[in-house]
Amino acid sequence: MDQKFDPATLDVRIYMRELGQSARAAARALARAERATKDRALIAMAAELRAHGAQLLEANRADVERAKKEGCDAAFVDRLTLTAGSIEQMAAGLEQVAALEDPVGRITDLVRRPSGIEVGRMRVPIGVIGIIYESRPNVTADAAGLCVKAGNACILRGGSEALHSNQAIAACVRAGLAAAGLPEAAVQVVAIADRAAVGELITLSEYVDVIVPRGGKELIARLARESRIPMIKHLDGVCHVYIDEAADIEMAVKIADNAKTQRYGTCNTMETLLVAAAIADRALPPIARIYLAKGVELRGDAATRRLVPEAKPATEQDYHTEWLAPIVSIRVVAGLDEAIEHIAKYGSQHTDAIVTGDRSRAERFLREVDSSSVMVNASTRFADGFEYGLGAEIGISTDKLHARGPVGLEGLTTQKFVVLGHGEVRNQRGGD
Amino acid sequence: MDQKFDPATLDVRIYMRELGQSARAAARALARAERATKDRALIAMAAELRAHGAQLLEANRADVERAKKEGCDAAFVDRLTLTAGSIEQMAAGLEQVAALEDPVGRITDLVRRPSGIEVGRMRVPIGVIGIIYESRPNVTADAAGLCVKAGNACILRGGSEALHSNQAIAACVRAGLAAAGLPEAAVQVVAIADRAAVGELITLSEYVDVIVPRGGKELIARLARESRIPMIKHLDGVCHVYIDEAADIEMAVKIADNAKTQRYGTCNTMETLLVAAAIADRALPPIARIYLAKGVELRGDAATRRLVPEAKPATEQDYHTEWLAPIVSIRVVAGLDEAIEHIAKYGSQHTDAIVTGDRSRAERFLREVDSSSVMVNASTRFADGFEYGLGAEIGISTDKLHARGPVGLEGLTTQKFVVLGHGEVRNQRGGD
Repeated sequence: MDQKFDPATLDVRIYMRELGQSARAAARALARAERATKDRALIAMAAELRAHGAQLLEANRADVERAKKEGCDAAFVDRLTLTAGSIEQMAAGLEQVAALEDPVGRITDLVRRPSGIEVGRMRVPIGVIGIIYESRPNVTADAAGLCVKAGNACILRGGSEALHSNQAIAACVRAGLAAAGLPEAAVQVVAIADRAAVGELITLSEYVDVIVPRGGKELIARLARESRIPMIKHLDGVCHVYIDEAADIEMAVKIADNAKTQRYGTCNTMETLLVAAAIADRALPPIARIYLAKGVELRGDAATRRLVPEAKPATEQDYHTEWLAPIVSIRVVAGLDEAIEHIAKYGSQHTDAIVTGDRSRAERFLREVDSSSVMVNASTRFADGFEYGLGAEIGISTDKLHARGPVGLEGLTTQKFVVLGHGEVRNQRGGD
Repeated sequence: MDQKFDPATLDVRIYMRELGQSARAAARALARAERATKDRALIAMAAELRAHGAQLLEANRADVERAKKEGCDAAFVDRLTLTAGSIEQMAAGLEQVAALEDPVGRITDLVRRPSGIEVGRMRVPIGVIGIIYESRPNVTADAAGLCVKAGNACILRGGSEALHSNQAIAACVRAGLAAAGLPEAAVQVVAIADRAAVGELITLSEYVDVIVPRGGKELIARLARESRIPMIKHLDGVCHVYIDEAADIEMAVKIADNAKTQRYGTCNTMETLLVAAAIADRALPPIARIYLAKGVELRGDAATRRLVPEAKPATEQDYHTEWLAPIVSIRVVAGLDEAIEHIAKYGSQHTDAIVTGDRSRAERFLREVDSSSVMVNASTRFADGFEYGLGAEIGISTDKLHARGPVGLEGLTTQKFVVLGHGEVRNQRGGD
């Protein structure tokens, strides 16, 4: 591992500014790089990870031991731990990203204007991406791969508990870049544990074009307040399934079951089930039986509890809550309008689904629910970059501008206008 | 004019929050509105403007008189002044926006995934747009029209010198909304001159989704620093034309002339001319003759001054300067690489053009110059919403995320994912 600085005398601000400057310089080389070069780098990174498995595991062991000593819980240690299998997964992930189409340089929407000029849009890298993430070392390789493929430089700041693991992975990433003739500074992994590094990173507006924060809601909310750089982020996933009166009961039960219980801890898991009053007596009892059999705690309004006596009373706060656990909030609503109102009031604009056989109500739901993913007759669990065919994702955005929903390679690029002329000049006055 | 508040007891913060709340509520109705309803509103606004021409001129007269009394300069008063012609222009502009296609609700990129779900993107309104602009009353009508057509509510804060004119226009806009059955709160024009209103507007993150600041660079820079809301903006337009050694001289002269002299005060006007050394002795003298004949002051490097003795020496700062005046900076560069370097260092990522007959150099320029508009063999003056076929523009963005370049109706919308299923649930584990 190369450590070019002396931590004892390190000034965090100077260190982070230097990372920023060299990332900015590297970004121009990355933006120019051909697809073949970028793919060669990714494939070389994968080979490096495989070739240095022993070193990666050793570096990781140091992190894991310290985390255990410091009393981190089992789930935390589990996310932190690398295995031969997870190293292979990182390597295979990089190869999968190499196989994806390169969005950069693609020109679309080219039209000839009355003046004679042709106007289109070219997809281009964003520049420098800053990513702040929890102590999951695999994110270091995954994020590096996506950023490089999209032609961006990146500054990666993983959880301080994963410092050694991340530095070991960073060495493989740098070796891969070098093997393809790309600047090693294109991927910089913050090499200091000092949490002040995060505060510096989100204010490096001169060198960093966008920040992708991952992790807990409170952390992201704080970063969003303090950042001077645009962010691609989501705070929480209070996702809904609405069972319309025109739903097929069997389909509704299957979707409500899957959306809640397939995985409890993911952001696209349903947290609140809304059921139209006209179908509640037929739809709710069979769903409730499944939930109860799986140990899911039910919290419902009065109408729900009349049909499902096992449900506890739901509080106002329950409907705002992202459970991330085997608990579900339930409400019986008069119909589509009330469902849309409920989602607008309590939802987090992440992912919401309607189950219905009625086309016009499906269309109203699609149009009027203002969430990053809106679904008809499908489980909210599908809100995912792989499931959507993006190839991989850096995260899911509930922001409205730029990237919304799962963010893949395209979300790590932007578009500029290109004008192809033949000597045209502007003759009429006007415009700014 | 309805004035529902007492300015004497007005609390700016409360007033602005109330505007925000009612804009947010109105935004949902706007988002739902069909194209026909929105178009009816725009056409009714146009009719109201035409029907109330006398009142508009009277309200404007009060603003103009005060501006003159306060010593505002002639250009300022000119921009502030309404005439029968400019009122007709506002009305016609609204009708033109009504004739544009409605981007809202359009589903694109629909693909069927292996799981069976179909995934696509639907274009949707952003929500509430805050627009801060100088004392040009016509912007009030133009911005209202674009926002309404794109399905957004908006809060418009024009220069305080145009307060009476803007309120008179606002009354026509509200009447048009009401005629179409849309909420009048969909367009709210700040009715107080207090400059604190701007500071409040840019912190109403709960109610306002995006801010479009217009006006001077210093004002926009300050707003960008203080805003808690994403912005669509540009600070300056230091635009370049690079004449490559493979340029057609006649075309190069025509474009360099037009880009600089067709209008001096616009943001897409060329401010710096770069000329490849190999062609400088043939290209520069004829361009310089035209500039000198038109009274354009030349500031060049040593190589330029050898060919054009009339040029003054250019300083480092000159190359950073957006002249907005009959002054042009000139530099002779070794070739494409140096031109791209110069633009990266001194440019403002607004609009840059190359004149060349060499296809591969044109492609490199298109790809490697990181500006919102990049052009081949055309005048920078084409960087404009009308010229690009956007129908109208709310401004030109040099930001990288969301909207880049001229921002029209589409830039006032965003996209969400839509998933059309048939009862699919997710079976494999994984993903967040």
